[in-house]
Amino acid sequence: MGLLSPGWAGSEAEAATGDAAFVRAMLDAEAALARARAAVGLTPPAAAEAVSRAADAARIDPRALALRARVGGNPVIPLVDELTRAVAARDEAAAEHVHRGATSQDILDTALMAVARRARRAVIADLARTADAVAALADAHRATAMPARTLTQHAVPTTFGLKAAGWHTLVATARDRLAGLPLPAQLGGAAGTLAAFTAEALAMAPGGEGARGPEDDPGVRLLRAYARETGLDEPAVPWHALRTPVAELGCALALTTGALGKLAADVLVLSRTEVGEVAEGRGGGSSAMPHKRNPVRATLIAAAARRAPALAATLLGSLAAEDERPAGAWHAEWQALRELLRLAGGAARDAAELAEGLRVDPARMRRNLNATRGLVVSERLALALTPLLGRPRARRLLDEATGEAVARGVPLVDALLAAEPSLAHRLDLAALTDPSGHLGSADSLVDRALGRCAS
Amino acid sequence: MGLLSPGWAGSEAEAATGDAAFVRAMLDAEAALARARAAVGLTPPAAAEAVSRAADAARIDPRALALRARVGGNPVIPLVDELTRAVAARDEAAAEHVHRGATSQDILDTALMAVARRARRAVIADLARTADAVAALADAHRATAMPARTLTQHAVPTTFGLKAAGWHTLVATARDRLAGLPLPAQLGGAAGTLAAFTAEALAMAPGGEGARGPEDDPGVRLLRAYARETGLDEPAVPWHALRTPVAELGCALALTTGALGKLAADVLVLSRTEVGEVAEGRGGGSSAMPHKRNPVRATLIAAAARRAPALAATLLGSLAAEDERPAGAWHAEWQALRELLRLAGGAARDAAELAEGLRVDPARMRRNLNATRGLVVSERLALALTPLLGRPRARRLLDEATGEAVARGVPLVDALLAAEPSLAHRLDLAALTDPSGHLGSADSLVDRALGRCAS
Amino acid sequence: MGLLSPGWAGSEAEAATGDAAFVRAMLDAEAALARARAAVGLTPPAAAEAVSRAADAARIDPRALALRARVGGNPVIPLVDELTRAVAARDEAAAEHVHRGATSQDILDTALMAVARRARRAVIADLARTADAVAALADAHRATAMPARTLTQHAVPTTFGLKAAGWHTLVATARDRLAGLPLPAQLGGAAGTLAAFTAEALAMAPGGEGARGPEDDPGVRLLRAYARETGLDEPAVPWHALRTPVAELGCALALTTGALGKLAADVLVLSRTEVGEVAEGRGGGSSAMPHKRNPVRATLIAAAARRAPALAATLLGSLAAEDERPAGAWHAEWQALRELLRLAGGAARDAAELAEGLRVDPARMRRNLNATRGLVVSERLALALTPLLGRPRARRLLDEATGEAVARGVPLVDALLAAEPSLAHRLDLAALTDPSGHLGSADSLVDRALGRCAS
Amino acid sequence: MGLLSPGWAGSEAEAATGDAAFVRAMLDAEAALARARAAVGLTPPAAAEAVSRAADAARIDPRALALRARVGGNPVIPLVDELTRAVAARDEAAAEHVHRGATSQDILDTALMAVARRARRAVIADLARTADAVAALADAHRATAMPARTLTQHAVPTTFGLKAAGWHTLVATARDRLAGLPLPAQLGGAAGTLAAFTAEALAMAPGGEGARGPEDDPGVRLLRAYARETGLDEPAVPWHALRTPVAELGCALALTTGALGKLAADVLVLSRTEVGEVAEGRGGGSSAMPHKRNPVRATLIAAAARRAPALAATLLGSLAAEDERPAGAWHAEWQALRELLRLAGGAARDAAELAEGLRVDPARMRRNLNATRGLVVSERLALALTPLLGRPRARRLLDEATGEAVARGVPLVDALLAAEPSLAHRLDLAALTDPSGHLGSADSLVDRALGRCAS
Repeated sequence: MGLLSPGWAGSEAEAATGDAAFVRAMLDAEAALARARAAVGLTPPAAAEAVSRAADAARIDPRALALRARVGGNPVIPLVDELTRAVAARDEAAAEHVHRGATSQDILDTALMAVARRARRAVIADLARTADAVAALADAHRATAMPARTLTQHAVPTTFGLKAAGWHTLVATARDRLAGLPLPAQLGGAAGTLAAFTAEALAMAPGGEGARGPEDDPGVRLLRAYARETGLDEPAVPWHALRTPVAELGCALALTTGALGKLAADVLVLSRTEVGEVAEGRGGGSSAMPHKRNPVRATLIAAAARRAPALAATLLGSLAAEDERPAGAWHAEWQALRELLRLAGGAARDAAELAEGLRVDPARMRRNLNATRGLVVSERLALALTPLLGRPRARRLLDEATGEAVARGVPLVDALLAAEPSLAHRLDLAALTDPSGHLGSADSLVDRALGRCAS
Repeated sequence: MGLLSPGWAGSEAEAATGDAAFVRAMLDAEAALARARAAVGLTPPAAAEAVSRAADAARIDPRALALRARVGGNPVIPLVDELTRAVAARDEAAAEHVHRGATSQDILDTALMAVARRARRAVIADLARTADAVAALADAHRATAMPARTLTQHAVPTTFGLKAAGWHTLVATARDRLAGLPLPAQLGGAAGTLAAFTAEALAMAPGGEGARGPEDDPGVRLLRAYARETGLDEPAVPWHALRTPVAELGCALALTTGALGKLAADVLVLSRTEVGEVAEGRGGGSSAMPHKRNPVRATLIAAAARRAPALAATLLGSLAAEDERPAGAWHAEWQALRELLRLAGGAARDAAELAEGLRVDPARMRRNLNATRGLVVSERLALALTPLLGRPRARRLLDEATGEAVARGVPLVDALLAAEPSLAHRLDLAALTDPSGHLGSADSLVDRALGRCAS
Repeated sequence: MGLLSPGWAGSEAEAATGDAAFVRAMLDAEAALARARAAVGLTPPAAAEAVSRAADAARIDPRALALRARVGGNPVIPLVDELTRAVAARDEAAAEHVHRGATSQDILDTALMAVARRARRAVIADLARTADAVAALADAHRATAMPARTLTQHAVPTTFGLKAAGWHTLVATARDRLAGLPLPAQLGGAAGTLAAFTAEALAMAPGGEGARGPEDDPGVRLLRAYARETGLDEPAVPWHALRTPVAELGCALALTTGALGKLAADVLVLSRTEVGEVAEGRGGGSSAMPHKRNPVRATLIAAAARRAPALAATLLGSLAAEDERPAGAWHAEWQALRELLRLAGGAARDAAELAEGLRVDPARMRRNLNATRGLVVSERLALALTPLLGRPRARRLLDEATGEAVARGVPLVDALLAAEPSLAHRLDLAALTDPSGHLGSADSLVDRALGRCAS
Repeated sequence: MGLLSPGWAGSEAEAATGDAAFVRAMLDAEAALARARAAVGLTPPAAAEAVSRAADAARIDPRALALRARVGGNPVIPLVDELTRAVAARDEAAAEHVHRGATSQDILDTALMAVARRARRAVIADLARTADAVAALADAHRATAMPARTLTQHAVPTTFGLKAAGWHTLVATARDRLAGLPLPAQLGGAAGTLAAFTAEALAMAPGGEGARGPEDDPGVRLLRAYARETGLDEPAVPWHALRTPVAELGCALALTTGALGKLAADVLVLSRTEVGEVAEGRGGGSSAMPHKRNPVRATLIAAAARRAPALAATLLGSLAAEDERPAGAWHAEWQALRELLRLAGGAARDAAELAEGLRVDPARMRRNLNATRGLVVSERLALALTPLLGRPRARRLLDEATGEAVARGVPLVDALLAAEPSLAHRLDLAALTDPSGHLGSADSLVDRALGRCAS
């Protein structure tokens, strides 16, 4: 497993979302259901205890389940079989209470959310590490000037601190968004009315019909107890056919890989042999070229960022689900959501390693700033020349000098002086062409990005 | 325009996002910049006024702009040309202040958000109409029993009220999510440092360097003033290369069309000739068949729901944007975002019409409930038989009777009695096989979905 | 493995694409390289034999490889390690020839294609079964009238034979397209120039430089020999950065699942409880409702058809791959391609079972044809009335009668006669309203679809 | 129109796919239908002529049509209205023959294909220009050495000729694929049986039922005549619900933009300020920075390549279309297909300009080859050292020297000599470290890519 996914192989997210983890989560859901039933009086406590214990102890082979899942189209049907048998071996009567009143989707959807919660924990932890690391970079490199690049070309100077601060904004936002997402339990019975449960409740307490309000409804009370037992959020209504929780989670995960993808995209540019401004702490080797130090972490994150949007699109597409259980839209979610959890988990792991180990080369940044022989500060020169010469003349002079500088490969300032020698004593050209003097509000923006000020 | 998009042709969202609207929004952004510059002292108030007025009055041909946009790759460059000329015609000196310190992306991104805000208003209004209409349906049809369908087959009874309440949950959530989304102004200058602005500010007030904190930074002050002038949200930092606002908006729009797509998917099933439980108030005709009353509104919503996820994926993919302005990722956003705004706007308009005009046929629902001759309540019969016969025997009996009923086309209850005549006086079979008696918590869940209780 | 993918768990396509299969395919590629090197004189035959044998015998744990793949970002680096060690254990000198001159991508891409070839075989076999089965249905049901449905509404009559014939067209086209796709070997060395190989060749035969043409080039000769040894197609040039083979394969697989998705979509409609015109031979059960016979095969195919397009989009996106090996685009392909092979393989398996077992209910089709009380032949009536009454009057009469029929629930023909009693003896209304008499060219089109005529 | 799409604004593909072009194509389809009907005897030649002339002369406002399309969900219904009126004004009786027997989808699908054919012509012409231009580059730069880059790092030398030859392979393949695609006419009548046509034919020639085979079927004969009149391909069967033609076209267009996207991705890397190996002939300006020469053509192509896969996914998703006309899947195709035609058309236009104007800087390539001080030829040194020292020692020596070279910034050859002085007279180090001497089969591969040899 994971041979074609070096991005997430061996990660916590992988472990949290594997077939074994899903079997576990489905058994946990069945146990939670039994306990919730007991809590509202539908199942004797001892029977619930027996189900819960059998579920805890059950060792079900995920592969066998996977193969049997084909018949009915989902793995819950054979799982209930197995669990019922295991409970019956302990307590014949308790077996009657396994899965009682529920439908496959209740268990599978609850398991999806429980698995997502565990995987999310790993993702968030690595996002937090990443956020800390890039915040430290932002702080440390507030004054480290480097070329800002737009459409691949040097534009004006910026700072590496501001770049890292931008990464921080993205990563912290992704972390907070994920953390704030509701992950609800699902319980609705055959088609979302909780009818089997309420029928049982009425059969047991026929006088109970005089409920005072929706919150006293036996089905609603069970739903509440079930959510509590699963440790997941309580939904307003069963969401078997209202797939917002899955689609929103998919979006949040794709927004996460996208945020990390920005970091990776920048690192890949800055690592280029000709740019060399940053390097991964531990680059990867090559099977053909001994000298290569490849930006492997950034590469794997970039790959995740390329895959996640399409998977999120699949989940978004499954919102348009007909009926009380759609024939296909629901089934299309499972693997897509799992893969998204893994991609986000793997990318976050790689991002944390990348950010914590990133080597920054301020000297190279400074050298690169000079690559255009002053063109990178042409904006600033324009600002200085305009009051002296008027905008049209200033622009014309600068255009000519730029042309000269590019064509003949001379510094811009020399070209300017050749065209307008008087500038030599009218302006402090050395200061004006120092990229470090044209960093604008970069420092303040770093503060804002790091949340170091009221905003 | 719109010939291939009956879903949004003629909608408010179309008007709000057309080329003319974008030209207007870009001019507004330039005007806001001039006023913001005046607010922080970079531009004389009269000059700002001149720019603002010229921008208001400008009549720029969007088509000409579109054609000229090709050279530099975006429409702002020729727009600034035109605007500068227009200002100069009124006030030569003021022309110097047009677009000063800004970059194309500042204007285009701000325009994208301003356009999105206007289109959002239309979407939200129609979502609110839709939410009201489906809430009314939910309320009116709390007791209207109908078959719940899972994997295309009748499962157990539900109510049309609960179905409509589920639509309400989706629509209300989509509306709230959209309404809560930040739509920030963008201002960063050439590469996000606001350097040209701060350089100007320093040149004008050289002693001002002793700023007391990031909030006093002249660039930050301008950013704040600019956000205020545009009426958009103030971003923590320029987001030219941090595309969360666009990607999140894309997700919110696709979640919206997906939510409406669920409503449409249900209406399409329920409108089928053989089902006939609902009908659009005003179905569409056919060029070949005079009798057809097609569910056109639902069809167009369904089409939007099929297109939106892929467009959102494009926006999610553009998060991984290299540098301070990526070469392609940014450009890929524009049309995808516009189309998403239109699809959501058109789908919301159609949904409002659909929901307000929907004709519901409770008699047909009742008739359909009987289509399986009692199988739809087999769950309930199982619950009633279990205490009498024990689970295994009850299940076996029911399986046999079901087989008989399906094979010979007789009512399930007859098949049951044939196999076990004693049931006739041991159970109230008439009551047990009445679908209306097996609606579970549907009524309470409607209340919860409509927010009619603490939850 | 496969717990969340009942669509392909246990399929041949799964086995052909598993981690173990990939390890095998990579070892095969290394062996093929050694033999190809021997064929062109770069490696002594005995050494090639030693490498080939060691590769055949190698038992490499895919999981261990997966975990080690993280360092360098792909599994070939640790695989070469293992293989080299295994060869050295047999023949120290031969170990020098392992992977010599190649790069990781050569091996991985070749393995992808070899795996694809094997999975394709399974897909094609099941498509052929499906095509045969639906052709038989088309033939058997040439005269089986049923309602054609457009926008969910009954339109005019068609035949089930024509519907099945359409499925045949789709399936046969998908099969032929897949079968015709080139699956090339990949060999280019470090960056696609085959330089290490040619350098070796020149070192061994310094006089050989006077090659007479590109086909005598030692690198090209090796490429040819390698393709032959792998059994894959020979590419014109190394395609490490020219990803057409992968993207085209992705499209062909998504076109395949889409074609099967059409079949599934139709089966899902026709299986609906209210429609009941077809049923899966062996429907799936439900964990909650004993009577349910779900169209599980169609559901799983529908789920695959929902997922495949997004995965194909990922592969299409990877075409835009910078450099001689892109940092991310390549890595994004692996798992997406594997999943596509599995989805297509699983969907083809399910489609074959579905088509071979499909139960068709002509009586129900006939009954459904009458559901609209004659509206389904209104087109034909219009044609017959027009010459009698002129088009405008004919249309008006029909519109009125249709309105009456719908409003009062009477047969269309009665409504017509009520409005225009003279029609009773001017037209053979019984014949005109027999749906079987309005099947157009359905029969001939079946012949054309089945290729039973020159076309 | 096109303000947000500088990639295709003003292109031939835009003109060929505009609303006016679609109206024209729909009118052409109606005219072709009338003529085809005449050809098989269903319509008097004079009436067909009248329809054809009225269609040619019709001036229908696309916007008005777009607005009226909403009611029925497609623009054909109001178009038939308008056309019928126009024909009636000339020849009352002929008006009866307008659209007779057809359905909206026949006209719209045929129009889609006709529009696609015209747009394809433009795309293919620009692909041909591009292919020629990159072939010329490949030829001219066969011997121009440059660094091959893998995972952003210099790997080994390659030639610019080979890179351009790879582009040629992609572009030529894309062109041939597009050119070979069938673009069929669509005609099926209300639901694909051609029933109204055959009914008419039978009514006119009641003895004609004794058709000798499917090719003599009156519906089939009409289909053939219609295809001929439209100039489109003749389909085996009506494909109203068999969407292969649209999905395959979508794939071919996305494969085209992807192929061009590879070219653009390479140009963007090679244009980077620090790399500078190529430049667009006419780079674009910036609104903020006078010196910028942005690779605008490559940027716009890259944007198209980012958008196309998602649009193709929408078309692939529409394959799974239920019924004889799906409620949504069909409608989702129209705008997605149009946008794909435009993106491909615009990208091909930009690629032609880019390729024809590309400025290549061989001197800069040579300089960049030296950027790693010899590491780029370490593969070759390893090959030369191995026979002298044995593989393990050779590799160890090279690893150490590489480490030294990187750490101390000295040429690799100096580091080698420092470690192993004897190499100075055992190897021709000057030759071995000349990148031009390690180009492998690049030259032969260029020949193969350009098709200059039997392959």
